Amino acid sequence: MKLHMKIGIISTGSELLRGIIADTNAAWMAAQLDAGGYQCDRIVAVSDELEELTAVLQWAFGAFDLVVVGGGLGPTDDDITAQAAAQAGRWTITRQPDAAEQVRARFEHIGRPMVELNLKQADLPDGCRVLENRHGTAPGFSVKTERGQAFFLPGVPSELKPMFETYVLGPLPRVTDPTLRVELRCFGRGESDIQQALKPIEQQVPGVGLSFRASFPEIGVTVNATDCAQLERAVAEVRRILGKTIFATGAVKLPAACGQVFTESGLTVATAESCTGGLIGHLITEVPGSSAYFRGGVIAYDNAVKIAALGVDPAVLEAHGAVSEPVVIAMAQGARQALNADIGLATSGIAGPDGGTAEKPVGLVHLAVVSNEGVVHKQRLFSGYGRDRVKQISAWAVLRMAFDHVKENR
Amino acid sequence: MKLHMKIGIISTGSELLRGIIADTNAAWMAAQLDAGGYQCDRIVAVSDELEELTAVLQWAFGAFDLVVVGGGLGPTDDDITAQAAAQAGRWTITRQPDAAEQVRARFEHIGRPMVELNLKQADLPDGCRVLENRHGTAPGFSVKTERGQAFFLPGVPSELKPMFETYVLGPLPRVTDPTLRVELRCFGRGESDIQQALKPIEQQVPGVGLSFRASFPEIGVTVNATDCAQLERAVAEVRRILGKTIFATGAVKLPAACGQVFTESGLTVATAESCTGGLIGHLITEVPGSSAYFRGGVIAYDNAVKIAALGVDPAVLEAHGAVSEPVVIAMAQGARQALNADIGLATSGIAGPDGGTAEKPVGLVHLAVVSNEGVVHKQRLFSGYGRDRVKQISAWAVLRMAFDHVKENR
Repeated sequence: MKLHMKIGIISTGSELLRGIIADTNAAWMAAQLDAGGYQCDRIVAVSDELEELTAVLQWAFGAFDLVVVGGGLGPTDDDITAQAAAQAGRWTITRQPDAAEQVRARFEHIGRPMVELNLKQADLPDGCRVLENRHGTAPGFSVKTERGQAFFLPGVPSELKPMFETYVLGPLPRVTDPTLRVELRCFGRGESDIQQALKPIEQQVPGVGLSFRASFPEIGVTVNATDCAQLERAVAEVRRILGKTIFATGAVKLPAACGQVFTESGLTVATAESCTGGLIGHLITEVPGSSAYFRGGVIAYDNAVKIAALGVDPAVLEAHGAVSEPVVIAMAQGARQALNADIGLATSGIAGPDGGTAEKPVGLVHLAVVSNEGVVHKQRLFSGYGRDRVKQISAWAVLRMAFDHVKENR
Repeated sequence: MKLHMKIGIISTGSELLRGIIADTNAAWMAAQLDAGGYQCDRIVAVSDELEELTAVLQWAFGAFDLVVVGGGLGPTDDDITAQAAAQAGRWTITRQPDAAEQVRARFEHIGRPMVELNLKQADLPDGCRVLENRHGTAPGFSVKTERGQAFFLPGVPSELKPMFETYVLGPLPRVTDPTLRVELRCFGRGESDIQQALKPIEQQVPGVGLSFRASFPEIGVTVNATDCAQLERAVAEVRRILGKTIFATGAVKLPAACGQVFTESGLTVATAESCTGGLIGHLITEVPGSSAYFRGGVIAYDNAVKIAALGVDPAVLEAHGAVSEPVVIAMAQGARQALNADIGLATSGIAGPDGGTAEKPVGLVHLAVVSNEGVVHKQRLFSGYGRDRVKQISAWAVLRMAFDHVKENR
């Protein structure tokens, strides 16, 4: 059940209207509202021209109970949101002492010199509430409007998101009967394939809705229901159909899910990367605390490195080529031994756009996981993807193999 | 110079307002318009409720010379765009024979049976022009409006994009005098700092405009002018002021710019990464053809790996700690020697959130580049950033050091 509050999201910035970036901030805020039981009614992107933005804000103040504006609070000349807000609401604008103090404190905290221009970020409508930004130098603010409230947040996603949670979403009245919801995170099948496979569930279990979210190379399946028993039944059905395609529930990414099983099993990990070029290591070390189980890796881009650093037999390389089952297994073995780890992960493939042959085309990847419990090898052909995506999906695929291997053997 | 045509993009669909997807269609169309010399003035996402969509279309018909609407042309109950358009423009709606014929032909082409429901896609406003969809079953249409024209395209990206090119962008008058534009890519100074430094240029050189785009950790400075001589003068001035902060011109990212100088100098590269965890290797290998100069690297997350794989002296590690000048230099030396490369790059730091001390806080990073020409070392404190950003900025910083080192010594 949604509360009947009219909500508008306004994003500003010429990079949106020039198509340099898509409006992922707005999508993220809309998803948070939706998860909290609120419905966003309109998302508008408008340029950072004073007249345009003022007109849009004036309209929004009258049209919505809650307005959230992202962007244009920085120190540069393009940053005119506070001025437009003041014009739209007929407020005066002056330097707000507590905002100025926050800007100063922030520069001190990050140890960078503050220039006078930065204090422009403290010039806000009189009577506004200043919202502290703990992740950047531009404070936000909120004002009372004709119909309700408007919040103004900086456009940098890492600043906007925590501020949205603290100041906008957190204080909203709790929706008393929110939709019950479970998100299952999947890897290894395409979105439409998953959608097709799960289609019957909405008919079988009344009151259940499924939604899908692709964030390459992962697919999120969200099961919505209005009642616990229905939710459980539908989730069980999704699990039965998708099986091992699901690797986690909730907001857990694959590298973090791997970290959890490595930690629980007390195992250490090392990598030997050819086509992924360091990406597996990067993904593993994005997880805070990964130094507890990740010993390191060898990026063996050149064949000489595969021989010298990983002990791959030159005769095997010669006979089978670098992109082959025996070489990728020898690489995983080598990483395990050279770095003294319990598990070795390796990739060797052709990321493209060049380097493919008829026998070994672009997108061909060999993957290996080696531990005391044995050796797992897979050959995959990720054709039709670009270089970036071949790297991404290969790194995910070998992490997924390690995840399964450790789970099965504990 | 942009043609003065007011342009609005309207996207419809509850998945946009529930934040399940970001509006990448709109961003793509805006980018196409921008490249063609046109400026999009507004992007609006609205739900597929008849009353809401009708009101938005009515407004858009009066506010813009060109309106492009994406989504809601399919056969299901949610697909109400044609109906809303008809209400907004006070047109009747009937089955259009040529549209019905296109739907039938399309199903025949893909060899799937057509159900009666699919013909709903041919129920369009009378007097409209039917737009053929060669990639899907829903035809588009265009209508004349108060101020100009409105185009209605299906929301599936692979259908919308070619139709936008054929029917919307293709027939637009060619912009004869597009803005002259140069983008300079910068790393190493903050956005507001750069803007402050460049502020006088807009006064000094008439007809010149500057715009700024931050895409962490890079800042793009775009110089716009209406005349070649002004553009050259302004660009020269930006170069004089920013100096080495600029690493490239146009659509070149730092790893590609590095690749170019490595290639031109005939030098090979190896990495030794501690806090960056493989990210430098990942960035280098995102560039197609990087195998020509990148030999590989060692991710030396654990100190034992620094000793065993990179030959760092345990006594030096003991005396100075892993995050120190002598260790990071020894790591770069070790990578160079172990991987037989001309240049060694190394990072050692504390990415956080844990592991900091009073003496060595989170964000402290040591960076080194070693070649036949000598050793470069830097100590930086990237405080106030999260783990992700400490990794990103450290990887960029050492790549930048390598870029400068090679340029200075050739």
